[in-house]
Amino acid sequence: MYIGIDVGGMSIKAGVVDDSANIIYKEAVPTGAWRPSSEIVSDMVNLILNVIEKSGVNKSDISSIGIGIPGVCDSVKGTVIFCNNMNLDGVNLSEEIRKSIDVPVFLNNDANVAALAEYCVINKPMKCFIMVTLGTGVGGGIIIDGKIFSGFNGAAGEIGHIVINDRGEKCNCGRTGCLESFASVSALIRQTRDAMDKDKNSIMHKIAGTYDNINGKTAFDAAKQGDKTACEVVKNFISYVSSGVVNIINIFQPEMLVIGGAISKEGDYLLNPIKEICKKECYAFGLCENTEFRIASLGNDAGIIGAAMLGKSNGVI
Amino acid sequence: MYIGIDVGGMSIKAGVVDDSANIIYKEAVPTGAWRPSSEIVSDMVNLILNVIEKSGVNKSDISSIGIGIPGVCDSVKGTVIFCNNMNLDGVNLSEEIRKSIDVPVFLNNDANVAALAEYCVINKPMKCFIMVTLGTGVGGGIIIDGKIFSGFNGAAGEIGHIVINDRGEKCNCGRTGCLESFASVSALIRQTRDAMDKDKNSIMHKIAGTYDNINGKTAFDAAKQGDKTACEVVKNFISYVSSGVVNIINIFQPEMLVIGGAISKEGDYLLNPIKEICKKECYAFGLCENTEFRIASLGNDAGIIGAAMLGKSNGVI
Repeated sequence: MYIGIDVGGMSIKAGVVDDSANIIYKEAVPTGAWRPSSEIVSDMVNLILNVIEKSGVNKSDISSIGIGIPGVCDSVKGTVIFCNNMNLDGVNLSEEIRKSIDVPVFLNNDANVAALAEYCVINKPMKCFIMVTLGTGVGGGIIIDGKIFSGFNGAAGEIGHIVINDRGEKCNCGRTGCLESFASVSALIRQTRDAMDKDKNSIMHKIAGTYDNINGKTAFDAAKQGDKTACEVVKNFISYVSSGVVNIINIFQPEMLVIGGAISKEGDYLLNPIKEICKKECYAFGLCENTEFRIASLGNDAGIIGAAMLGKSNGVI
Repeated sequence: MYIGIDVGGMSIKAGVVDDSANIIYKEAVPTGAWRPSSEIVSDMVNLILNVIEKSGVNKSDISSIGIGIPGVCDSVKGTVIFCNNMNLDGVNLSEEIRKSIDVPVFLNNDANVAALAEYCVINKPMKCFIMVTLGTGVGGGIIIDGKIFSGFNGAAGEIGHIVINDRGEKCNCGRTGCLESFASVSALIRQTRDAMDKDKNSIMHKIAGTYDNINGKTAFDAAKQGDKTACEVVKNFISYVSSGVVNIINIFQPEMLVIGGAISKEGDYLLNPIKEICKKECYAFGLCENTEFRIASLGNDAGIIGAAMLGKSNGVI
């Protein structure tokens, strides 16, 4: 049995996870991200003890604790190097938690951990597996030989921060035209709004009601009803996503590439055109075996499951 | 002792290489790329026997043979999947060569093999090491934990075929705006020619003599003499290279990134501005340890040495 903890800006979720990546029991507490680290760590420890107790699992059956952090970690030392919007920088979470529960503690970036979860539930050894997450931002995780690849400093896998076209918007990271600035939900909302501005007859106006209600589904929903302007928005958006996906395949040639995040709920409507573009654009396509594409299957549970599986996968590569 | 073979379109080079990646003896024969595979393989075998004999090394001291191929290989089966401009597709080079010299035979892509060579001569274990080659095309190799990363199908590491800006030229691979279409010698020559067209007073005209003599050094040489137009060409070229380099660092966070190929002869004049751009643009820069940059050190010997080291590094990851 493993404990998986998903540390987010709003809530900290913890779960007891079995060897087959099933959540036995889970619970969450508010993060209170503004608080000092000692309080956050204390809540984390209480949450762990709580889920163990409520799961009915024996404390001695817990073989490790894994934690997914929205930031960069030193997974060997168990230290948070930096954490977005939270006072955990420099905290040795491993040491802190082991004061209460003395089992190995593994840390990693939350996007990497989600990728590990999606890999584990497929339950098939793969040389390379990649997850691209199309959410508020664009993230990703690289799994090589069943382990998270996080570079020599813990910061690898920033798939959202590859420039695909320097005509793009300024990205939060400081560059211009990162994949994230074209292929995130925020980017899609911006693209949708711009298109609505230009076409006052588009049914996107009816679907969204007001501009404030535009979301990542607006253009997709209108496109499915045949709205030409929406179809154009979706077509362009998918071409941006594909540009990043082809770049990643040309670099990694993974057995499988999984797309997650809010936009992945569009399923085949998103995946089929990506596959078509990859067929045309991926290097060596048709000359050797090709990458399989899937939509992520775990949704919000990926954070807990992947963190738990950090123990099973025996750390990182 | 290891045998390394560098298969190129013009010549096949072979060398006897010791455990410390030193070439003991090397020799080359013309490839005759148009010939049937049996003749090419036969020449390869004779070349191997020849370099062993002339090196004075005992045949029984050769522990493996490694071959770098300009194409994609199945390194487990020892088969060439496809080979650029040469009739080796589908040939099981391992089986063919073992008929004459029965030691393990390792195959890999030539750019990957060159990266392995540069890694081996540094003689320091690294979690991730990347070489980017700025030559006629842009190539690269990814070394993870001392082994070549070539994806599940042998075709990974095509660093030159990531789109950095879709305003670029059409690339040979079919995409538009690949790193190769901005940052190769061929691209630099095109950029130099375009700039010379616009500035008839540039000393690049004097340096090159005729348009046919423009090469990858023309703009660099003129820039070093203070020619403004040439400085602009070099500045833009380096910004394209850096765009690719930052993308790669954001994905891999390697301990070291080495730049090779003809343009790497510019040394610090090339490397220093790349470092400056990386400082500004790389994700997590300053927050954790950062990538070290170097110029490749082996030149044309990288092919032989890296191929030989395929045996020492025990294959691929």
